Amino acid sequence: MSPRAKKLINRPDMILPEMLEGFAAAYPDIVRLTDEGLIVRRTPKAEGKVGLVIGNGSGHEPAMIGWVGRGLFDVNVPGEIFTAPGPNRIVQGIKATQSSAGVLVCVSHHAGDLINAEAALELARAEGICNADMVVLYDDISSAPKGREPERRGTAGLFFVWKMLGAFAETSGNLGACKALAEKVRDNTRSLSMALTSCIHPITGQLMFELPEDEMEIGMGVHGEAGAGRARLVSADDTIQRMLPPILADLPFRAGDEVIVLLNNSGSLTFMELSILYRRATQLLAETGIKIYRSWLGAYATTQEMAGFGLSLCRVDEQLKALYDAPANGAWFKSVG
Amino acid sequence: MSPRAKKLINRPDMILPEMLEGFAAAYPDIVRLTDEGLIVRRTPKAEGKVGLVIGNGSGHEPAMIGWVGRGLFDVNVPGEIFTAPGPNRIVQGIKATQSSAGVLVCVSHHAGDLINAEAALELARAEGICNADMVVLYDDISSAPKGREPERRGTAGLFFVWKMLGAFAETSGNLGACKALAEKVRDNTRSLSMALTSCIHPITGQLMFELPEDEMEIGMGVHGEAGAGRARLVSADDTIQRMLPPILADLPFRAGDEVIVLLNNSGSLTFMELSILYRRATQLLAETGIKIYRSWLGAYATTQEMAGFGLSLCRVDEQLKALYDAPANGAWFKSVG
Repeated sequence: MSPRAKKLINRPDMILPEMLEGFAAAYPDIVRLTDEGLIVRRTPKAEGKVGLVIGNGSGHEPAMIGWVGRGLFDVNVPGEIFTAPGPNRIVQGIKATQSSAGVLVCVSHHAGDLINAEAALELARAEGICNADMVVLYDDISSAPKGREPERRGTAGLFFVWKMLGAFAETSGNLGACKALAEKVRDNTRSLSMALTSCIHPITGQLMFELPEDEMEIGMGVHGEAGAGRARLVSADDTIQRMLPPILADLPFRAGDEVIVLLNNSGSLTFMELSILYRRATQLLAETGIKIYRSWLGAYATTQEMAGFGLSLCRVDEQLKALYDAPANGAWFKSVG
Repeated sequence: MSPRAKKLINRPDMILPEMLEGFAAAYPDIVRLTDEGLIVRRTPKAEGKVGLVIGNGSGHEPAMIGWVGRGLFDVNVPGEIFTAPGPNRIVQGIKATQSSAGVLVCVSHHAGDLINAEAALELARAEGICNADMVVLYDDISSAPKGREPERRGTAGLFFVWKMLGAFAETSGNLGACKALAEKVRDNTRSLSMALTSCIHPITGQLMFELPEDEMEIGMGVHGEAGAGRARLVSADDTIQRMLPPILADLPFRAGDEVIVLLNNSGSLTFMELSILYRRATQLLAETGIKIYRSWLGAYATTQEMAGFGLSLCRVDEQLKALYDAPANGAWFKSVG
């Protein structure tokens, strides 16, 4: 079956500005939209703390406009649909943090995002902004083999970095420490995604990729990039049994480890399905002796109405547990703490 | 285009127990699953406060298992997919609140839910439980004309009752006052829904209803019940322009009123589309002089992967604003306050 071709938009070329205008109007107590088209936290964090910026292609909401707020990002630089923002806009984002303690630009590893962030940092230095740095983040085990982790893509498992780094930077004035914390979370996180269906590109109106009715794709990137391969569609339990072991082997996660589990809805999966999938994941983890500290089931980064999910595990110690449990208040990500 | 026929489940007859098991395992700090298949708040509210129970057909998640927790429901009695739970199970739910101050059974108005709740209260009385009452809730202006409000269906706008009543009952030991508060919120709430696509029934595997590729349905119930009628698919702006005026006329909402606006995603709509829709709603409300106090965009009650949304307005005074802003912590509804 095909995804829906109908979208509730106006003109395709107006999707980004109209979305940002509506979003900012809905959450005036949490964010504001600048003249430059940046989403900025309404109440800045305390003076002397590190600013967090992320740029990304749009079309993945709630990522990342919905993750700006207390305990999360200071500034999001939304690019056009599925297109990384250019260097000039990222520099605007760095400036918009108004941080004197330094700014960390977070990059979900994709070629376009990386190139633009690197160029932005050069541009910033040329303008005399010397206390900005970047951290490159990745989690998808299907996109490069073990041992070549820095070649891997960023997918929904970066949820853990956003949440924990956001909590850390809320009280940290040390740019190097923020970067090290982000790398620590990244290095303890592994993800694998799958899709049941494709989705329609909101601008072209065309299918993003093709997927036969009796197949699923495992290792899917957030723009439909090919993954580990296609397989016959199987049950929820069998899907988890196929996805969890390679994740566990990759870090590797071991008996006695404590983990947080994320099941990220890529778009049109239901909470019903996520819960059924999660049930099997808990059973398999119990067999391995790995302990679940917390779990989140929901849509945190999407690819339009694609039906699929990402399974992510993050190994946590006492520091990461405390950061994870800290409160957060973005428009589309709230943690009561 | 058709909705997806692929679902990540195991056996159709095991959807409910497997979903509940997975859900409860994911959020052990917020809920527990009883032997009777009830979702009960992990930390009961203070002694002497009114217990809140709701029964509903499953398949609408996050409603209502995800709405059990602090500042929300005490007990949810999940029925089979799209099927109200029977009287015996609702009585189990009343008992599970363990409230000495009384129990309010909340009913989203549908024939099955109403009949079963009425029978449950009779059964409870026969068992000597005399401090239980029920409140019947509705919001959908398309399902019966003005003047016959009690014949209307309950849809996603009951969000406002759940949130505000949950906050009220957290500190109230007065059953009558809780019921009156629920009715006050109900009587100040109006909703209208629309759908772009149907969805697949998770048990039968069949389409819930048919909708041609170039049409949309306005006034859609939460199970695909026919509404005000079908229309040619129009833009996001034109959709809002068609839906908002009848909502405003129905209460009626007037210049100077303060409202909270909800755009509820029925399943596979994107945050991108919700934001674009919301933008036009704010423009039209600004023209009328109605002031927006708060807004929520997200999936709070769904019909599987149906693509559509509900637009709901609730007129608020100082009491309702404070209740709305109170913190809440359900697995799938969090309000930071």
